Amino acid sequence: MTAPPIHYEPAGPAAVITLNRPEVLNAATPAMIGDLVAALNRADADDKVRAVIVTGAGRAFCAGADLSAGPDALAFGKDSPDATEAAVGFREPGGVLALRLLRCRKPVIAAINGPAVGLGVTMTLAMDVRLAADDATFAFPFTRRGMVPESASSWLLPRLVGMGRAQDWMVTGRTFDAAEALVSGLLTRLHPGPDLLPVALDLAEEIARHTAPVSVALTRLLLWKAYCDDGGPQRAHHAESLATILRGHSRDAAEGITAFHDRRPPRFPMTVSADLPAEFPWQW
Amino acid sequence: MTAPPIHYEPAGPAAVITLNRPEVLNAATPAMIGDLVAALNRADADDKVRAVIVTGAGRAFCAGADLSAGPDALAFGKDSPDATEAAVGFREPGGVLALRLLRCRKPVIAAINGPAVGLGVTMTLAMDVRLAADDATFAFPFTRRGMVPESASSWLLPRLVGMGRAQDWMVTGRTFDAAEALVSGLLTRLHPGPDLLPVALDLAEEIARHTAPVSVALTRLLLWKAYCDDGGPQRAHHAESLATILRGHSRDAAEGITAFHDRRPPRFPMTVSADLPAEFPWQW
Amino acid sequence: MTAPPIHYEPAGPAAVITLNRPEVLNAATPAMIGDLVAALNRADADDKVRAVIVTGAGRAFCAGADLSAGPDALAFGKDSPDATEAAVGFREPGGVLALRLLRCRKPVIAAINGPAVGLGVTMTLAMDVRLAADDATFAFPFTRRGMVPESASSWLLPRLVGMGRAQDWMVTGRTFDAAEALVSGLLTRLHPGPDLLPVALDLAEEIARHTAPVSVALTRLLLWKAYCDDGGPQRAHHAESLATILRGHSRDAAEGITAFHDRRPPRFPMTVSADLPAEFPWQW
Repeated sequence: MTAPPIHYEPAGPAAVITLNRPEVLNAATPAMIGDLVAALNRADADDKVRAVIVTGAGRAFCAGADLSAGPDALAFGKDSPDATEAAVGFREPGGVLALRLLRCRKPVIAAINGPAVGLGVTMTLAMDVRLAADDATFAFPFTRRGMVPESASSWLLPRLVGMGRAQDWMVTGRTFDAAEALVSGLLTRLHPGPDLLPVALDLAEEIARHTAPVSVALTRLLLWKAYCDDGGPQRAHHAESLATILRGHSRDAAEGITAFHDRRPPRFPMTVSADLPAEFPWQW
Repeated sequence: MTAPPIHYEPAGPAAVITLNRPEVLNAATPAMIGDLVAALNRADADDKVRAVIVTGAGRAFCAGADLSAGPDALAFGKDSPDATEAAVGFREPGGVLALRLLRCRKPVIAAINGPAVGLGVTMTLAMDVRLAADDATFAFPFTRRGMVPESASSWLLPRLVGMGRAQDWMVTGRTFDAAEALVSGLLTRLHPGPDLLPVALDLAEEIARHTAPVSVALTRLLLWKAYCDDGGPQRAHHAESLATILRGHSRDAAEGITAFHDRRPPRFPMTVSADLPAEFPWQW
Repeated sequence: MTAPPIHYEPAGPAAVITLNRPEVLNAATPAMIGDLVAALNRADADDKVRAVIVTGAGRAFCAGADLSAGPDALAFGKDSPDATEAAVGFREPGGVLALRLLRCRKPVIAAINGPAVGLGVTMTLAMDVRLAADDATFAFPFTRRGMVPESASSWLLPRLVGMGRAQDWMVTGRTFDAAEALVSGLLTRLHPGPDLLPVALDLAEEIARHTAPVSVALTRLLLWKAYCDDGGPQRAHHAESLATILRGHSRDAAEGITAFHDRRPPRFPMTVSADLPAEFPWQW
């Protein structure tokens, strides 16, 4: 019997999800992806969780898709009785995870503690904030394996780092360091490796101490919806207007404004599980 | 009787619009937003105005929405006989301003002279160029008040600074300094505070000295239209093709090319009020 | 008889396309644009070509549209019997080139060896990687000639460098240096002038040595399609899923994974001319 491929652990207001196959640099299997989705479901349903942190066990963050099965390791559907049939509705697992991440009700912080390769880095693109150890390395080696980008990275990466950088990384498949990842905008901040998880936990604490859970869920969703959607600033304005009037009349806003005037920390009464407006999150 | 919430003043080829409630750090009211829209209308109609500069009186740029009315300061529509009815067609004021800014016929330069908080910074996202004093500070504290982003910032901010940075700022609501705002791409340039307005006026002078007013209006509109629109580079190519043939046959182009060959400053004959092609600006 | 406006030369795995009117700083004519499109067709059809490099002869990259015909140099269609009729279906040449570049099956590297002005810089925006000499200069002087942006640059530039920078450059038409172009994200890297072409050739060699041609073609197309398309990450996920299952079952993937396990360079068997899936490239 083997250890489960991820480990889920509450840590103060954070849920820490650890990719947990250190003996193979946390190489990803379909089972790991499925367990990651289940962990996000668990975090979303727990009002005590104010932020999710994703990190890796051991020295790597994630070495990418597990290729140990050999030359047909990525021949999805090959075990189906009818592979052609299986291909028709095929959705590659990284993209399923990415679309699930976009709908999270809690902010998701990637704490990239070491090498992040292929799926190991593309899975972080649909997370909210990417922090990394200053000796982490990165690669999108799909073209070097005869493969193509996944996890909706063809859409997410050029928007995050600009098309020039995205094509350079994706076409060559070369390895690059954390400094290049930072200056390109792939990462928000770098930290010495031992500080990385504490910094991520501090960020979760900051969110928990100061912000309204329902406002955070709506803000995260409004931003991703407006980012992914084709409705332009007009449709974003309509969504914001609805959210603004709902929030402006809420007990949370009354508490937020009162605490601001009183110069004291707010104690927001509303919860994500009970009080997220029925209009949100949107299907998209 | 109180001073009007904004001050409008011609300064050479610029119209300087000053947020003018320094006793409350230029906190924004619906009346201020309305007066800002009226000032943009005035600038757009005046051919002598080649650029608009928006700045703040006193030590702040704008402290955000005025919360002095107390816990229900942001409960829009609460004074209506039927608040539910009022909510149906509600458009939050910051977004109304943002969409108006996108349609301006003159470039709009934000000269951010001090703290820009909440609406104080989101209102600048639909302006063209953001210059700031090197000691300006910034925050998007919506989640800390139990509120959500407005002014179409859920759409504009991630495109300007990348989703990682946008989520970090919007979710935590933390205050950050001008250096972080510059490196993220929120700002174009920083200057010592006393130099800020002169630099903005120099930029307006440069535009006035070298460029054709109709070309500037069309360029600004083409860029915003292509940015907000869902038609991809194909539709942008069609709009550019139409604008190119209209401009290529114009008296302005003949003057621009002749002045270039003669190595002298151009004197463009056409005006925005008389000569903006009927096809522009688009409705969007 | 004059020299052809471009020069096409194989160099190892690269096709080097040189803008070749050095006596006029490689000023662009409609004939040069047409020859560039023909050169891209030739490179796309030749399996020995793994990357395309575009550079300029002499000290400039490209000084922009040739204005030597005088005041009506940009009055497109003026020689037609019926100019109004000609205008109806007019597509400006830079945009025709840009849309063709987006569909290339080989990565296109701009090696910007000197001044890149107007069309000289906008033509590079639809290329994949922009490298420049550290003394190159840039300008988008359309407003200074009474003209407007072209080559789909109204769409491409704000996405590449952010709207603030794009409006600043496009509205003022000012000249800026390579350092500003680099920090803004317009360029990927700077090099001393004499090193520029060797660096571009090394990049082509790196692509040829490590990557599968069909994977590179699909990756480039997936990224541009997802960038230009309005379908959001969902539609990108669907395209990636199809490409993933086609590639995952391919001889290229088997070779890529085997070479990875054997720690040897891969020898990919499949070719762009024979093996690009019928589903790709999409029309868009």
